[in-house]
Amino acid sequence: LVNEQRIVIIGCGAGGGTAAQLARKTDRNAKITILEMSKYAQYSKCGLPYVISEKIKKFENLIEFSKEWFEKEKINLYLNTEVTEVNIKEKKITFKKDNKLEYTEFDKLILATGAESNIPPIKNIQINNKLTQGVYCLRTLEEGKILYSALKNVKKVVIIGAGLIGLETADVLYQKGLNVTIVEALPNILENTLDSDMSNSILNEIESKINVYTNHFATEIELKNEKIENIHIKNNETNKEFKIETDLIVVATGSKPDVTIAEKIGCKIGKKGGITVNEKSETSVKDVYAAGDCTEYKDFITKQSTLIGLGSIAVRQGIAAGINAAGGNYALHEGLLQTRTSEFFGYEVAAVGPVKKEISNFPIVYGKFSGSSLISYFPGGKPIVMKIGVNENTGEIISAQSVGANAALRINVFACAIQNKVHVEDMRKMETAYAPPIAPTLDAITLVCDVAYLKYSRKNR
Amino acid sequence: LVNEQRIVIIGCGAGGGTAAQLARKTDRNAKITILEMSKYAQYSKCGLPYVISEKIKKFENLIEFSKEWFEKEKINLYLNTEVTEVNIKEKKITFKKDNKLEYTEFDKLILATGAESNIPPIKNIQINNKLTQGVYCLRTLEEGKILYSALKNVKKVVIIGAGLIGLETADVLYQKGLNVTIVEALPNILENTLDSDMSNSILNEIESKINVYTNHFATEIELKNEKIENIHIKNNETNKEFKIETDLIVVATGSKPDVTIAEKIGCKIGKKGGITVNEKSETSVKDVYAAGDCTEYKDFITKQSTLIGLGSIAVRQGIAAGINAAGGNYALHEGLLQTRTSEFFGYEVAAVGPVKKEISNFPIVYGKFSGSSLISYFPGGKPIVMKIGVNENTGEIISAQSVGANAALRINVFACAIQNKVHVEDMRKMETAYAPPIAPTLDAITLVCDVAYLKYSRKNR
Repeated sequence: LVNEQRIVIIGCGAGGGTAAQLARKTDRNAKITILEMSKYAQYSKCGLPYVISEKIKKFENLIEFSKEWFEKEKINLYLNTEVTEVNIKEKKITFKKDNKLEYTEFDKLILATGAESNIPPIKNIQINNKLTQGVYCLRTLEEGKILYSALKNVKKVVIIGAGLIGLETADVLYQKGLNVTIVEALPNILENTLDSDMSNSILNEIESKINVYTNHFATEIELKNEKIENIHIKNNETNKEFKIETDLIVVATGSKPDVTIAEKIGCKIGKKGGITVNEKSETSVKDVYAAGDCTEYKDFITKQSTLIGLGSIAVRQGIAAGINAAGGNYALHEGLLQTRTSEFFGYEVAAVGPVKKEISNFPIVYGKFSGSSLISYFPGGKPIVMKIGVNENTGEIISAQSVGANAALRINVFACAIQNKVHVEDMRKMETAYAPPIAPTLDAITLVCDVAYLKYSRKNR
Repeated sequence: LVNEQRIVIIGCGAGGGTAAQLARKTDRNAKITILEMSKYAQYSKCGLPYVISEKIKKFENLIEFSKEWFEKEKINLYLNTEVTEVNIKEKKITFKKDNKLEYTEFDKLILATGAESNIPPIKNIQINNKLTQGVYCLRTLEEGKILYSALKNVKKVVIIGAGLIGLETADVLYQKGLNVTIVEALPNILENTLDSDMSNSILNEIESKINVYTNHFATEIELKNEKIENIHIKNNETNKEFKIETDLIVVATGSKPDVTIAEKIGCKIGKKGGITVNEKSETSVKDVYAAGDCTEYKDFITKQSTLIGLGSIAVRQGIAAGINAAGGNYALHEGLLQTRTSEFFGYEVAAVGPVKKEISNFPIVYGKFSGSSLISYFPGGKPIVMKIGVNENTGEIISAQSVGANAALRINVFACAIQNKVHVEDMRKMETAYAPPIAPTLDAITLVCDVAYLKYSRKNR
């Protein structure tokens, strides 16, 4: 008789779902159980804006791995299931399904409880601890459906937060013909993705389509007969306050990790509020792993602990958690590159490594290059702006940002370079693929390195 | 009085023109002279097929740096100029311009004499040492113009050679509505670019548009009243010979380096027939440099000397030759990656590192992955096939090939990995940029590494 190991996963998002899949691949006999609060199997949160835009036909298309898929893999997926207690000593979980309490035992536990939207302290944003009607988030499939319905008969919309998700949503609503205003408390759009010189390079185009208020925070929502009429916003510097007429508000001011269970069972919570995990997705509690947006892990360059906010990292942590929980051995790299990308208002943007403000005390030289995706004589070339940061002492590339044609794939080249501590002098000499319809003899990838190298070598003469 | 150094460059192609530019950047006072046989300043050979297709409006558009541009940079560019003698002892060059002999002296000489088309030994291909009327090459701007004119009233065309240039030309002529046949003596198309399993993956689609005869060599051109009527081709295995009716023939069977001057002045010529250069683009003769298609240099993986056949490498060697000749210090990487790409018949193909047949005696495991450029739920994803080779003993990635969406940029990531001897285990864990409209959470870049890693780890258990 084989003594099957029992793996329980709380949460079936990108981290939890992937962990289950990899646990199954690692141990064909393990008893694997997922407890998921919502009624949906593993779906893509990042796809939500594209259902709103109707690029994707329906919300259910975002489900990447269905309940049936998990069944076929002999993974027990409980939906609509709330964990009520985890007894870590007895390794026993109590959960509520269909208003009935049940329990299950585990040998290994994987926490993939995700995160929930930050709700900024704006007067009238909530009534009785619930979002006021007309105020919406876009983090879950349920929220997506609600927002989609609410958009009927709406003409004016205000989005709070000009990060990646705020801008993706802004673009989608602009495409639907709405009058869109985006309000950002920080001095620039995309503060966590790009340096201000890079984000400013696309600001004019964005401002030609929507209203952008950076350095402004929302203070109050004005209601009339329980309907939103205005939102008040205030300039951070001048304190000047004014109101904007709006029918609907979308909150996109980031998220905070859900660590309720993790805290109760004694997992170490980091400074940023996420479950502290190591490169194997282990928490501080034996036999307990964590993956995805509920965790924090160190950054490759700054070595500072940082919240996970990217689906790509959730999946990679899920791989590690699933394999290790099932008895395998899988370690992620020593720190996160945070390779990231998105597209909106006709721009592809991508970056890897910390933005300037996060490493303002580092010795860094920056190189920047603006060019085209193709040789000048070939029609159809598209603009590219690239910027890289280089350690002034070692010459190693530590960050890269790109706006324009195939920004993401160019940034992937730098992800490889940063991960492997490649010197800017080596990188600028790299042979890139060349053909007139595809790329120039010297791609922006190497030309931006030339610029940074010159600055680096001047400092190191 | 400054004693200006004198740099003479023979040839104004990608290697020579770039060398002149970088010499000028390195030394603002040097006297720089380029002697160019043709009547054109630096132009892009790789762009020629796209003028034939009329994607580019005229041949002169391919001139990337005009005579005026060089003048502005105070570089003396002599066009229509034939070098008649190089006296290496006295550092004196005699050349003929407008039927007048002149001479110039140099401190440093850069040979960028390029290559000329291989003419295969086919009966009637030449008459009196000149290509028979109706037979054309597509290597120089002059040849491009001649071919373009010759295409009027042509219905059937045979291309000899199914390498990158042969296939680019085939596609262009197919797009013009011609009946195209391509004949290749080797067993597969693209033998120097892709492994046969990769090239075969696009063969069906190509064969639906043009006639492809691999493993066949052309033996004889049949003329009638000095006009081409048929070409005879012969199966390499069965020796069966037959004829194909054709109005026009394009020869695309590679090139051979022009080393006439190099040989005369005593430069070491390598086994492949090119001028032997090192990482600084130095030849074996003091103060003589060489760059581009006239040279050979060692491959990064095989360590074998290999002919330069890529514009991207010519430019990089030109950079080294120009900087070093002008007194700077610039070394290329220890060996060539031969990163290469092209597109035809709707496919983008790209590769880096040696093809399988070149390294059949190496201990290698291969991984292959077929997938999509986007997550399955997002519309518009395009197929990608990737294959990588991994050193079975060290785990280092040594080659990569790709067919499909953004093949070239994905291959650039592997160029970085190969150059920096990245282990396949590290590469498979790399964070790639993810967003639904741009790339999946796990890109083909890492998924192909997963496949190769599994094979590698099985061998190293």
